[in-house]
Amino acid sequence: MTPLDLLHKKRDGLALSEAEIEFIITSYLDERMPDYQMSALLMAIYFQGMNDSETVALTRLMRDSGVVMDFSHLPGPKVDKHSTGGVGDKVSLILAPLMAAAGVYVPMISGRGLGHTGGTLDKLESIPGFRTQLSLQKFRALTEQIGTCLIGQTEEICPADRRIYALRDVTATVPAMPLICASILSKKLAEGLDALVLDVKVGEGAIFKDAASAERLAQRLINIASHFGLRTIAMLTDMSQPLGNAIGNWIEVVEAVEVLRGRGPEDTKQVTLALGAAMLQAVGKSSDFKASMYKLNTLLQNGAAWEKFLQVASAQGGEVAMLHEPTRYAKPTSVVSIKATQSGYVAAMNARELGRLSMALGAGRTNLKQSVDALAGIMLQKKVGEAVVTGEIVATLQSSTMKIDEAHLQSALSCFSISTQSPKIPPLLLAKLDEHGRHELAL
Amino acid sequence: MTPLDLLHKKRDGLALSEAEIEFIITSYLDERMPDYQMSALLMAIYFQGMNDSETVALTRLMRDSGVVMDFSHLPGPKVDKHSTGGVGDKVSLILAPLMAAAGVYVPMISGRGLGHTGGTLDKLESIPGFRTQLSLQKFRALTEQIGTCLIGQTEEICPADRRIYALRDVTATVPAMPLICASILSKKLAEGLDALVLDVKVGEGAIFKDAASAERLAQRLINIASHFGLRTIAMLTDMSQPLGNAIGNWIEVVEAVEVLRGRGPEDTKQVTLALGAAMLQAVGKSSDFKASMYKLNTLLQNGAAWEKFLQVASAQGGEVAMLHEPTRYAKPTSVVSIKATQSGYVAAMNARELGRLSMALGAGRTNLKQSVDALAGIMLQKKVGEAVVTGEIVATLQSSTMKIDEAHLQSALSCFSISTQSPKIPPLLLAKLDEHGRHELAL
Repeated sequence: MTPLDLLHKKRDGLALSEAEIEFIITSYLDERMPDYQMSALLMAIYFQGMNDSETVALTRLMRDSGVVMDFSHLPGPKVDKHSTGGVGDKVSLILAPLMAAAGVYVPMISGRGLGHTGGTLDKLESIPGFRTQLSLQKFRALTEQIGTCLIGQTEEICPADRRIYALRDVTATVPAMPLICASILSKKLAEGLDALVLDVKVGEGAIFKDAASAERLAQRLINIASHFGLRTIAMLTDMSQPLGNAIGNWIEVVEAVEVLRGRGPEDTKQVTLALGAAMLQAVGKSSDFKASMYKLNTLLQNGAAWEKFLQVASAQGGEVAMLHEPTRYAKPTSVVSIKATQSGYVAAMNARELGRLSMALGAGRTNLKQSVDALAGIMLQKKVGEAVVTGEIVATLQSSTMKIDEAHLQSALSCFSISTQSPKIPPLLLAKLDEHGRHELAL
Repeated sequence: MTPLDLLHKKRDGLALSEAEIEFIITSYLDERMPDYQMSALLMAIYFQGMNDSETVALTRLMRDSGVVMDFSHLPGPKVDKHSTGGVGDKVSLILAPLMAAAGVYVPMISGRGLGHTGGTLDKLESIPGFRTQLSLQKFRALTEQIGTCLIGQTEEICPADRRIYALRDVTATVPAMPLICASILSKKLAEGLDALVLDVKVGEGAIFKDAASAERLAQRLINIASHFGLRTIAMLTDMSQPLGNAIGNWIEVVEAVEVLRGRGPEDTKQVTLALGAAMLQAVGKSSDFKASMYKLNTLLQNGAAWEKFLQVASAQGGEVAMLHEPTRYAKPTSVVSIKATQSGYVAAMNARELGRLSMALGAGRTNLKQSVDALAGIMLQKKVGEAVVTGEIVATLQSSTMKIDEAHLQSALSCFSISTQSPKIPPLLLAKLDEHGRHELAL
């Protein structure tokens, strides 16, 4: 058996055995299989796919390439949320402390922003002093003590996934279904969870633009996770427009703080509460979705979630004073407002292009070696369905590293469609999926 | 424009522009595009293909990555033959001097054996002293002086093809139609030819096992070559069993010498004469195929081709005495005969497995860094259609580097199918294709 034999096999559409996948992973990690063979294999997988047995084997082998954590000594259920990535998605910042306040443990390992989507770590690190690179020992201790901790993937967790993901990112093989499943689940399985909730985004700003593809991914993830006894619920949520009004890093933290203090944009709050309700259901704490959302909202209103967030931020080195008084934060060096060129209603907004623009302003990166500008981003003054008059501000662009120019303005303006008729607002929560299938949400 | 953008584009099945292909080739050659992106692109091309414009652009850019020779000062037509690769294919050794004797120039750049197929260079180098790594200056001079010269690809010819081919070889992307076309034609176009003849092998021992695929490749090559004004004729020839009786290096030279002296196996002679007739037709010297074959056979019978071969061998440093008296050559250290275990007729022979076995005995290589054993190989005492009785020798295995064992014997034996009924012998010359389409051969 050589890597080349297996490359031929997958290219020709045949399934690889567990022993063959193990051979690939170990060969790649000990450098007997070079990057150029792995990237060709990843492209072959993009075209030929992998069946469930192959995907389960890949997931298990990637999980076992590093440390698998054990939180079984904790007195409550352990659950995490994973989002497939969107624009303006600051849900993790709210959800982790909210759920800890609700009595479930959330040991959360997050990622960095890449391409048009932002990353939880970049957002958290815009809080002065906040450290996301903690040891697993510290991660365990804080999760146990506070109920949640938010860190980045360490060298010890799923090294096979880390190396393969870095290669996928530069070889156009990110959107391969089995690779997505194995990458997501290997990391989540390494967290030692009882259950998992997936936020599968649908729309222009998401990996999958159509509900059918997003649903296929969700069902595949639920199915693969079930082979590991990891109870998984997926929520299909809208990403045709950005979530909330802030797109960036620090401005998203500020918006998350607003929600944590019982205010903030309604869409962000609703998605957070729905994902929280799914988490409670996944760990068997409540099956009444509406009641769960209501109960969790109480924890936003009564300050319990906010209190928990301050505890987490403080424990991870963040300057809590800055969270209390965000106005003390540094100001962007370049700020430009985008004004409507006609009156009417915001009919649609291109989430993907807004994400790209935010990245271009400095809030994101095209490769993981770049650093980000904490202050860069876009504030949306209008969202889909809102009325607008000519000359009214629809969005504000800001940056500390770029001089915002006419091209930025034009591309921002082209992200907005204005119509004379009041548009249909896309539903925010599209469906819930679990091991029994798809469920409409009647909220 | 980045290599990654173009990787996405090809992955999604879109055509690349000439400027984009140029960007890829130059980026790859100056190392801005790493191997792992090129290999992913090659696999995407394997699945998505390339249209004619893309293939023409790739061919041209690969040709122009190195020296393009000019033989226009020669008084006669320049023509070469390319074979898609088979087992026991020693045709080039006979054809080049034969055609030079017939008054056409054959500047021949050949390859090494890889996998189950042998290579002209390895065969030639088994002649003591024979040098295939000549300067292009020497190549030009000998072609002009003798009428033919047989060398290996130099550093100066098609460096882009050389690097990409080496990568294809280790990433399971060799059998991608547009890549095959560009690789073959870029090198042949760099030889400054007037015309080209292709020997497209069909059957178990060839790249393409079925005539339809082989014909598609032939038509594609003829079409792409026509964009460069290179008149191309393709012969589809049988590779369901090895060509001739010898498979190896030195033993193939000995068999080629037999044909050059007017003897040798009939199949090898017929394929050589047919390809020679196609060459005469391609350069406009004769359109009567049968008459051409007859005339060329005269040059085998009257010693003219043999004389030319001795001239070439001598000019390239080969010990001509050894060609006159092959029995003086060193003997293999391990020789084992394979005996029929039943009586009947040889119904079929697995050319691919025989090629693999010859490689395993030392005659070939799995990667281009390995050296080969000049003496290793297989002599077939029986071919398809011949009668055989139990205990009769059907083949002899030989090697100087391996101790031939029971496993080699068993795999040799399993390459022969013996039946009680006399089988239909597969036709040797299947069809001729040119820019006007496919022609049956009525010889």
